[in-house]
Amino acid sequence: MKTLLKNGTIVTGSGSKVADLLICNEKIVKIGENLLSEDAKVVDCTGKLLFPGFIDAHTHFDLDVCNTTTADDFASGGRAALRGGTTMVIDFACPNKGESLQYGLDLWHKKADGRTACDYSFHMTIDDWNDDIIKEIPKMFEQGISSFKMYLTYPAMMIGDKNIFLALQELKKYGGIAGVHCENADVIDDLIAQKKEKGEIKPSSHPETRPSVLEAEAIDRLLKMAEVADVPVVVVHLSSADGYDEICHARQRGQKVFVETCPHYLLLDDSRYYQSEYIESAKYICAPPLRKKADQEKLWKALASDQIQTVSTDHCSFSIAQKYAGQDDFTKIPGGLPGVETRGTLLYTYGVAEGRITKEQMAKLLSENPAKLYGAFPRKGVLAEGSDADIVVYDPEGQSVISAKDQAYNMDYNPFEGFRQQGRIAQVYLRGKLSVENGNILDDCGGTFIPRGKSQL
Amino acid sequence: MKTLLKNGTIVTGSGSKVADLLICNEKIVKIGENLLSEDAKVVDCTGKLLFPGFIDAHTHFDLDVCNTTTADDFASGGRAALRGGTTMVIDFACPNKGESLQYGLDLWHKKADGRTACDYSFHMTIDDWNDDIIKEIPKMFEQGISSFKMYLTYPAMMIGDKNIFLALQELKKYGGIAGVHCENADVIDDLIAQKKEKGEIKPSSHPETRPSVLEAEAIDRLLKMAEVADVPVVVVHLSSADGYDEICHARQRGQKVFVETCPHYLLLDDSRYYQSEYIESAKYICAPPLRKKADQEKLWKALASDQIQTVSTDHCSFSIAQKYAGQDDFTKIPGGLPGVETRGTLLYTYGVAEGRITKEQMAKLLSENPAKLYGAFPRKGVLAEGSDADIVVYDPEGQSVISAKDQAYNMDYNPFEGFRQQGRIAQVYLRGKLSVENGNILDDCGGTFIPRGKSQL
Amino acid sequence: MKTLLKNGTIVTGSGSKVADLLICNEKIVKIGENLLSEDAKVVDCTGKLLFPGFIDAHTHFDLDVCNTTTADDFASGGRAALRGGTTMVIDFACPNKGESLQYGLDLWHKKADGRTACDYSFHMTIDDWNDDIIKEIPKMFEQGISSFKMYLTYPAMMIGDKNIFLALQELKKYGGIAGVHCENADVIDDLIAQKKEKGEIKPSSHPETRPSVLEAEAIDRLLKMAEVADVPVVVVHLSSADGYDEICHARQRGQKVFVETCPHYLLLDDSRYYQSEYIESAKYICAPPLRKKADQEKLWKALASDQIQTVSTDHCSFSIAQKYAGQDDFTKIPGGLPGVETRGTLLYTYGVAEGRITKEQMAKLLSENPAKLYGAFPRKGVLAEGSDADIVVYDPEGQSVISAKDQAYNMDYNPFEGFRQQGRIAQVYLRGKLSVENGNILDDCGGTFIPRGKSQL
Amino acid sequence: MKTLLKNGTIVTGSGSKVADLLICNEKIVKIGENLLSEDAKVVDCTGKLLFPGFIDAHTHFDLDVCNTTTADDFASGGRAALRGGTTMVIDFACPNKGESLQYGLDLWHKKADGRTACDYSFHMTIDDWNDDIIKEIPKMFEQGISSFKMYLTYPAMMIGDKNIFLALQELKKYGGIAGVHCENADVIDDLIAQKKEKGEIKPSSHPETRPSVLEAEAIDRLLKMAEVADVPVVVVHLSSADGYDEICHARQRGQKVFVETCPHYLLLDDSRYYQSEYIESAKYICAPPLRKKADQEKLWKALASDQIQTVSTDHCSFSIAQKYAGQDDFTKIPGGLPGVETRGTLLYTYGVAEGRITKEQMAKLLSENPAKLYGAFPRKGVLAEGSDADIVVYDPEGQSVISAKDQAYNMDYNPFEGFRQQGRIAQVYLRGKLSVENGNILDDCGGTFIPRGKSQL
Repeated sequence: MKTLLKNGTIVTGSGSKVADLLICNEKIVKIGENLLSEDAKVVDCTGKLLFPGFIDAHTHFDLDVCNTTTADDFASGGRAALRGGTTMVIDFACPNKGESLQYGLDLWHKKADGRTACDYSFHMTIDDWNDDIIKEIPKMFEQGISSFKMYLTYPAMMIGDKNIFLALQELKKYGGIAGVHCENADVIDDLIAQKKEKGEIKPSSHPETRPSVLEAEAIDRLLKMAEVADVPVVVVHLSSADGYDEICHARQRGQKVFVETCPHYLLLDDSRYYQSEYIESAKYICAPPLRKKADQEKLWKALASDQIQTVSTDHCSFSIAQKYAGQDDFTKIPGGLPGVETRGTLLYTYGVAEGRITKEQMAKLLSENPAKLYGAFPRKGVLAEGSDADIVVYDPEGQSVISAKDQAYNMDYNPFEGFRQQGRIAQVYLRGKLSVENGNILDDCGGTFIPRGKSQL
Repeated sequence: MKTLLKNGTIVTGSGSKVADLLICNEKIVKIGENLLSEDAKVVDCTGKLLFPGFIDAHTHFDLDVCNTTTADDFASGGRAALRGGTTMVIDFACPNKGESLQYGLDLWHKKADGRTACDYSFHMTIDDWNDDIIKEIPKMFEQGISSFKMYLTYPAMMIGDKNIFLALQELKKYGGIAGVHCENADVIDDLIAQKKEKGEIKPSSHPETRPSVLEAEAIDRLLKMAEVADVPVVVVHLSSADGYDEICHARQRGQKVFVETCPHYLLLDDSRYYQSEYIESAKYICAPPLRKKADQEKLWKALASDQIQTVSTDHCSFSIAQKYAGQDDFTKIPGGLPGVETRGTLLYTYGVAEGRITKEQMAKLLSENPAKLYGAFPRKGVLAEGSDADIVVYDPEGQSVISAKDQAYNMDYNPFEGFRQQGRIAQVYLRGKLSVENGNILDDCGGTFIPRGKSQL
Repeated sequence: MKTLLKNGTIVTGSGSKVADLLICNEKIVKIGENLLSEDAKVVDCTGKLLFPGFIDAHTHFDLDVCNTTTADDFASGGRAALRGGTTMVIDFACPNKGESLQYGLDLWHKKADGRTACDYSFHMTIDDWNDDIIKEIPKMFEQGISSFKMYLTYPAMMIGDKNIFLALQELKKYGGIAGVHCENADVIDDLIAQKKEKGEIKPSSHPETRPSVLEAEAIDRLLKMAEVADVPVVVVHLSSADGYDEICHARQRGQKVFVETCPHYLLLDDSRYYQSEYIESAKYICAPPLRKKADQEKLWKALASDQIQTVSTDHCSFSIAQKYAGQDDFTKIPGGLPGVETRGTLLYTYGVAEGRITKEQMAKLLSENPAKLYGAFPRKGVLAEGSDADIVVYDPEGQSVISAKDQAYNMDYNPFEGFRQQGRIAQVYLRGKLSVENGNILDDCGGTFIPRGKSQL
Repeated sequence: MKTLLKNGTIVTGSGSKVADLLICNEKIVKIGENLLSEDAKVVDCTGKLLFPGFIDAHTHFDLDVCNTTTADDFASGGRAALRGGTTMVIDFACPNKGESLQYGLDLWHKKADGRTACDYSFHMTIDDWNDDIIKEIPKMFEQGISSFKMYLTYPAMMIGDKNIFLALQELKKYGGIAGVHCENADVIDDLIAQKKEKGEIKPSSHPETRPSVLEAEAIDRLLKMAEVADVPVVVVHLSSADGYDEICHARQRGQKVFVETCPHYLLLDDSRYYQSEYIESAKYICAPPLRKKADQEKLWKALASDQIQTVSTDHCSFSIAQKYAGQDDFTKIPGGLPGVETRGTLLYTYGVAEGRITKEQMAKLLSENPAKLYGAFPRKGVLAEGSDADIVVYDPEGQSVISAKDQAYNMDYNPFEGFRQQGRIAQVYLRGKLSVENGNILDDCGGTFIPRGKSQL
């Protein structure tokens, strides 16, 4: 099975060039000029950009949370991902407190295996800490799980600073990397209780009880714990300029820090929470909450100057019906937005086409950096000989508009409804196989689990 | 009863001038040139500096802690204070968890009333948080207690971030000010456990389990909680450049912050903990621990540029015998240093005489600022008509050396042993009465309780 | 000549209290409760605030600049000042290049002496640097001139960094303090030339050629030169958050820095430059230019947290006719705004009444701090026995609106037109004499020159 | 001509693996496991590290400066480079003021072409600015010169801030990148004049007239000019923590900045300037000067956390005889150190072997990043199929000591005399040809000019 993509612009983190790319079975076998291959199917890619398949390192598919289950599971989520050029997701295996990591991993394999359109891997959530868990850590690495998630907020997930520090030390022994949700739980709890006491139960209380200074506080705390543990960490879904300041301070002290942000923090602001219709505001509830326009501006600059390493989505979707759960109590609104399908076109449109970042930076943010950071490089994350033939053929011409009417999500709204898309994802190849063409998904279950090793970033 | 101090240099925060100062009973009634008073005792102060009586806003006298009681009580502590020019201390009333604030206040009055050589007041320690405590807060103000202490470390004292935040909000209602001990308890606990597990139980493990980055973390956390509560706070006993950085960041964000440091952080460094004799190291155990020379340098600069408001002592003394308690476990060494007697001469010698700060800044740091910050100004803290006649007559000539052989402490060592003293405290007047002359204490029990109001800084 | 102000609230930087205040001749002779004085005129001040007379440390009266002369001279400017509660201005004596400092000082005395309603002093402008100037410096101090002004922008005024550094060293020898206008001249010149080349000659080009980052650059440069010279300096008319950041960085390094801002940077923003009518925009041309709302917010916070020491006006007024000079070239618009008359009411209204700062902070910012910073304390800047009886009786009740129709300026517009004024300046006493009552100026020429000494801040 | 390197550890910025590497003529044609090539010379690289040939992006060979000429020209310098694993240098073509860029470029080609052992390219020095120069800029790009150098110090080289800003704008049009020497010229000149006036003419006056705060000032100024011009820049030879702070501040503002440091700033400190023998101090004169140990520590941390992009040498060598020129005047000592030969072993020894950085980071700092930053990637800077076969075979075993007795420099001392070298450079391949073996240079003149394109970093 050979495919020869002719004359596309091969985009990688370190530069772009017009060249031919030869796929044989699952791999890229040759990149060069004027390639010939008699037995290959030839596809003219003139005028197209060839990106390495996008990697979304932050999704929550098929997650039980807030007394409900996310609207998207690995079937619908994987289809949406692939349609949006994302050939691999790293979802969060999430055992409950009291369950073993292995139980969580097995459960997530059950949710995903054989049902997912794109490749996938799992971060392991550490929401409990004891000797059994400690013993399981090396076993996770043996099974290709090299990254872990911890929470500084949410009682159901928190293990406390004392354990976070121990976990950072423990993961360091194996070269594991931790991504941490950074918001100050205690003060947020106080603010929520005070809002409720005052009867202020509308969605607008959500951002008001989670001010960005409390994200910054948790980031600083995490980074200083990591400084003592002498290990790099990942600040996931950075949302604010306040939080960014703390990251810069850590780097000024000489610390290594990785940072992720998400399209909704780059493109949506907290005015969404002040709409008169309850449901219009509820649609945008997520944590950290959407911030101000000035925060967006700072995050874009941080992307442009390579100070943020990855853009993921924190995809965690709920239907309108599910979002109605919090009509009488904003804390009951299930938190999260869908995003896995539109990340690529949004970054291209508002990043590359508007001149904020280069297409090479986009390749780094969506592909190369997550692959390196989470130990899947160079199998994933780059268009190079020997790498998996995960390829997004991006046609930069034409425009469209995002609409819930045209999406693969198992969802009845889209938080980016009405946003422009410059160009479109013409084809997506997953390990050599044409899997999406013109928005049509050609293979629903082609994804496989990707074991990962140590961080390479 | 009148006393006329002729021709001294009156030093205040806003300038110095040679003038006469007339005391009548407890008050300064007149400052001017060529004052005449037929019925006054005339004292020639030519060549002397007249400082407002020093205020030490951080002492621990007669405190039960670490299964023992501090070496100094209000009797010996007050005598040492007065001998060192400190005419007022603000000690920490410290009820145990479960006891009421009122109980703590009554107990501290019992410890101090009628037994103290200098004037005194109390901060109230909040080491418990519940509805009863909340109701007691306004009653403290009624009894002249307007400042409070909280801890981000020490399990016996901690109330947790959730309550710290609520307490900050509550105190704000009454215009109260909180001073907070800032060190990250959780990671310190982890580090201590790890040291013990490795059998590293010498005093040198003390600074190694309390790195300055963990002071900085707690400072940042406190300041961000205070930012959300929208209330100024006091960072007590700042010891490190790392911690200072966080204070500067808060001010850059636009926040109002007060800072205290202590002579031992300005003049002693952590090499003390690495002496071969156990007891020589144990003598210097305190928290936060002594830091590096670079930290000292930064703290001096912060004093010189008015970025630190007060220099107190955190006087908390233990005898050599008591310090031996931790021979097999550094965490059992009772923590604290004496300091109340030498603060003035050390600041003068290493600050003013060495040109690091001006004598006017010294007057602010030791007198005016603590008086304002803690609501005792202008009764205390300044040489002005109408103020209490608390006066230090400082003779800048001559030199001596600090020695445990010549101290009023109930102590058998002095952490500043061998440090030079430039000049000396010739006389001390307490509310108009000559109470110390040439190192001799003339009145052992002249002190009275000073009720305080809202912060004026 | 005695006046007894009964029952007013005496406001000083360190606190407020209801008391009586007795004036005898030019001085305050007594502050206390229930004062009696048979021979004094008694004025009931119940419900009124008594502030120390305001000091405006940054005015330009009767200045030849931009081929014209400011609209206000010492006559009209002094009247406006006094009417607004400003009992002393410090104007800038400004010899041209080639003229001696003495010539400049004499000239300014000629402009002011006998013609000014409020007291006055002069900063000396150093816009030339050579051996003659160096020799004149000590002579300035002998004549009561202890503060100096230098420019990092404006070719006519600049002496270059090489000389700025030497001047800072030279002034340090005498305890002199320098205030510096901080904007990067070189890049601004480039940007102006580029604007002109593109024919973009409207007022909106003014802020676009003077971005706040170029203020920040010059501030940083000044502060680092001052750091090497080891001397404090004053950053005058700080306008931006960017600039404030550099000041915070210097303080983090341990440096002593003083900062001034102005009401127009606190209350007006750069949208004024984008009005369709040329003259409406031209009215607001000043340097640094007006900034964004976010800058205002940061400056207010810096005031509230005591990180800015003084609020002056940079009063430099031109009539509408004069402002028309730049219709075809924005660089020809004479730069400057009037402000000396409304500083007090604006700070009270938008600062104190809106809860951003306390009335005690207002007393510091407008009176005590400038008096100390520029060596006129305690003769000026405080309500205390022995001080000049410069007193603003502020009635906090009632509201009015600022209007050019009711102003003492020799001006036909007011940049704060339509701004609210909470309360009003009921009376102003200048050295004991009632000089303004209900807006009526009772003495046009009562001002005298105030010699000053070393900085006391 | 084929060579097959068997079983070495291929080190790149994104990871290392044991593999075979096949060279054909000048190129790497294959990297993989168990490669076979019948016609290739097979070299066993078991246990060896294969680095991409090092690139030194900062050398000064054959430069007339300080009334003398550097000790090393392209012949000796190129030999030393190659022997140290540096297969490409980027030297600074340096026309004098008044000469055209083309003249400078031609001159540098004359110095280098046919005489250089390693590959080479040139940055173009802009030390003059006028319409002719502006017209020459695009012609430089046509000739493969895409990077430029400017000076904020040295009168002979400076073009002034006004022109620096214009030059940054001009270079931006073509995608050119500027590297800038950042020290504040004006204050340094003042300090030098003052030292001379006091007769303090020893080498120790050198660091004292160039304090790190003046490097920081110039960095901040450059970065803010670049911010207004909206273009990234390179801060070359960063030497200090103070300077690093300014870079962090710029990144916090959202700016893209590249940074270079040098081995001597990582490993040598300013105590060298205080040796009793004049010549021992003079040997170390360079600008910026050597700094403190704390600066070294901060620079190492910045390397470890990827906040510095390249380590170059600023090789600019003078013999002991030449260094004697400043015996009576420290400013006459020709400034510069040799370094091109020992950069690789020093980074390996004190960076990789001591655990401060990884070998992958070393590959980035010495090869990949300079290649990308200066537009020579992927021809240079990486071990990948299609890239030039520039390969350093590094044997990590064994130790030696740096000595002037064993160096290729045309020099009679080595500033790193006595420093350990962990491991050694066993072989160096230059475009496929074995050019160094066991320290023996096999080809003196094998280097060629490498044209470069736009920056890819």
